[in-house]
Amino acid sequence: MTELRTLKVALLGCGNVGAQVARILIDDADALAARTGARLELTGIAVRTIDAPRDVELPRELFTTDADTLVKDADLVIELMGGIEPARSLILAAIQNGACVVTGNKALLAQDGPTLYEAADKAGVQLSYEAAVAGAIPILRPIRDSLSGDRITRVLGIVNGTTNFILDQMDTTGAQFSDALAEAQRLGYAEADPTADVGGLDAAAKAAILASLSFHTRFDLENVHCEGITGVTAADIAAAKDAGFVIKLLAIAEKLTAADGSEGVSVRVHPTLLPREHPLAAVHGAFNAVFVEAENAGELMFYGQGAGGTPTASAVLGDLVSAARRIVLGGPAQTETTIGKVPALPIDAVNTSYYIGLDVADQPGVLAKIAQLFAEHGVSIEIMRQTIHRDADSNVESAELRIVTHRATEAALAATVQAVKGLDVINSVTSVLRVEGV
Amino acid sequence: MTELRTLKVALLGCGNVGAQVARILIDDADALAARTGARLELTGIAVRTIDAPRDVELPRELFTTDADTLVKDADLVIELMGGIEPARSLILAAIQNGACVVTGNKALLAQDGPTLYEAADKAGVQLSYEAAVAGAIPILRPIRDSLSGDRITRVLGIVNGTTNFILDQMDTTGAQFSDALAEAQRLGYAEADPTADVGGLDAAAKAAILASLSFHTRFDLENVHCEGITGVTAADIAAAKDAGFVIKLLAIAEKLTAADGSEGVSVRVHPTLLPREHPLAAVHGAFNAVFVEAENAGELMFYGQGAGGTPTASAVLGDLVSAARRIVLGGPAQTETTIGKVPALPIDAVNTSYYIGLDVADQPGVLAKIAQLFAEHGVSIEIMRQTIHRDADSNVESAELRIVTHRATEAALAATVQAVKGLDVINSVTSVLRVEGV
Repeated sequence: MTELRTLKVALLGCGNVGAQVARILIDDADALAARTGARLELTGIAVRTIDAPRDVELPRELFTTDADTLVKDADLVIELMGGIEPARSLILAAIQNGACVVTGNKALLAQDGPTLYEAADKAGVQLSYEAAVAGAIPILRPIRDSLSGDRITRVLGIVNGTTNFILDQMDTTGAQFSDALAEAQRLGYAEADPTADVGGLDAAAKAAILASLSFHTRFDLENVHCEGITGVTAADIAAAKDAGFVIKLLAIAEKLTAADGSEGVSVRVHPTLLPREHPLAAVHGAFNAVFVEAENAGELMFYGQGAGGTPTASAVLGDLVSAARRIVLGGPAQTETTIGKVPALPIDAVNTSYYIGLDVADQPGVLAKIAQLFAEHGVSIEIMRQTIHRDADSNVESAELRIVTHRATEAALAATVQAVKGLDVINSVTSVLRVEGV
Repeated sequence: MTELRTLKVALLGCGNVGAQVARILIDDADALAARTGARLELTGIAVRTIDAPRDVELPRELFTTDADTLVKDADLVIELMGGIEPARSLILAAIQNGACVVTGNKALLAQDGPTLYEAADKAGVQLSYEAAVAGAIPILRPIRDSLSGDRITRVLGIVNGTTNFILDQMDTTGAQFSDALAEAQRLGYAEADPTADVGGLDAAAKAAILASLSFHTRFDLENVHCEGITGVTAADIAAAKDAGFVIKLLAIAEKLTAADGSEGVSVRVHPTLLPREHPLAAVHGAFNAVFVEAENAGELMFYGQGAGGTPTASAVLGDLVSAARRIVLGGPAQTETTIGKVPALPIDAVNTSYYIGLDVADQPGVLAKIAQLFAEHGVSIEIMRQTIHRDADSNVESAELRIVTHRATEAALAATVQAVKGLDVINSVTSVLRVEGV
């Protein structure tokens, strides 16, 4: 081992994932050297506060608050600070110094990825980010390399563990959203401020990254239609369950032909009804999974831990070893291809099935009126189910109507829902959710 | 596109997979050129019989019976003939000519892989074989590259679609093995001579390949303990179901510490009881899946179509595009690492739980006798369940005893079973199956 060259590794950030990466770089140094053909020497860890409490005991002399200086002297830079700045400037500085960069920063990639890809391309260095999507699950490399001779048509991903935990809790226990969220926070699956997770923004960033690799085209956050799970009620979950569905927050990227015949890609995040037999329906708790459909390969699924310090560190180290091997053995960097050049389609171009919950007056002829209205808007109904409730005290009956449509456009559906709301027999539209996998 | 260089591709074999590879090379030529940076020109298809009936209509002038000449002039050789010879000699000839080779030949790799790996290494050419294990599922590249910074501890794979279809049929319909096999043959999931599939040999070859990549050590077919599914009865399946298990034929490679303290890898194929909640239990029909456990990544699963012409062609083309890109851009070939050097352990070193079915006399004290005997052999019982049957005609009662043990060595279990057979209260040992995932 003594004759191996040494590559200097700078680590930016020492949170959950960073601390585990540092630990593994130190503890598994020999194994990593054997696989890489070079010793990976952790030269420093840039943090904001040197004496902050951390999960892992690490040598104090590694810590520094001077990230700029640390980056200048590195062969490999691992960025795990998160956020846009100073992460962005530090990555660009590293690239300009000729260092290879490994990052897990999905927000930065989704917002300003092209700047980074182009800088890496120009400098001829490797920029890798497997850890940015679905934690430990190897998904970006299979999409980019293993499926390079195929054509991906659709990606459906459970890429946010917090929301999957919450929805899974609601599904198994019947809990309301707020209670399931509180339980997730208690167990450490949700942060004190859960907005980025439950609002769908975290999943949206990952959707943009998945879409970019799958369709060889650069998509950013602005191309992603995003709806979170805060509006999903226990009643929605129960109704979905009753009809043989489960509700999951999905990141979706799919090739579509819009009504005007133009081809494009829809990138979106929203709560989605999936049939219980769908492989993604069996993804429980905080686990992640990405379901890929390709023309020749057919259906593929990649499943594993989507978060957590140690699992995500595995993805970071896979990228690090690959980048280091390339420095040792030579060869070109893997760059992002933009040969696809397919436009992002607005949500209105999407053609899918819908689940609609209606609170209606219990009167004869209501079903006929509603069915008529759907027909007039060109939205075909697949399932219509009415449940009558009688209030024991007031003896007033109310009816709940649940409709699953055949495929329809967002525009047609929106117009239908608008018209339905205008009917005097409708008390309220309780939910409108998209259905996939049918 | 006109300025791109051309790479000559020779295809050896035109069966199920080969015909689809040829079709895609012709139909998707422009897309493949855009991704590769070179035009991939199919220069010929070597077959035994030029006018044999084929699934796909292909230009007759591409066919030749002279594989040797075809290989001499190729930049990339795709070997999909199967079998040992002439595949082996043709691959070696291609490597010596400096061509990159893509193969799906698991039998050859499991029997004589090291000869091929070493030849490729020496010639500095890429030898790829993603299609050899689990068809369309990207599994070898993730194990080799994505998990290169982690340590795999165990791989459990459903890697043979025929046997998974048969066992799934038996599980869902209660059919006997012979009926399920006949159904699989009728539907084209099993061949007229199903020996290699149902005997476990096909899975054993894939187990050797998975073990070699996962543990950075060369394992061949002789290192694999192999049991097929011909002995699995409808009664076994029913009893397993009753106890919350499903029976799957698994290819297993796992790191173990033997009783003498030595470390090694057990590579084996056998019918296995899995808890119904295990992710692999949900893999139905002819689908494949590989479950990987790694120290840092935790549990991962890769799921998809394990056979079929078009899905497997996707894996072949992914390897082909990667190899061609490397020719265009330069850089070293990905070679197999043998840094692990862990010995293969015999089946006796395995330490697992067992399911044992016994047909016993319905007498008082039988359970106590059997429990005593297990205890004497150091095998701890986790579950013991007795079912009494009464023959309506003869009015004779018989009892069926099902035992699930805690972890025990094969040696201890074998000794226990031997001793149990000697008890006068035992009519027969109806099944002994290993249990995983508990």
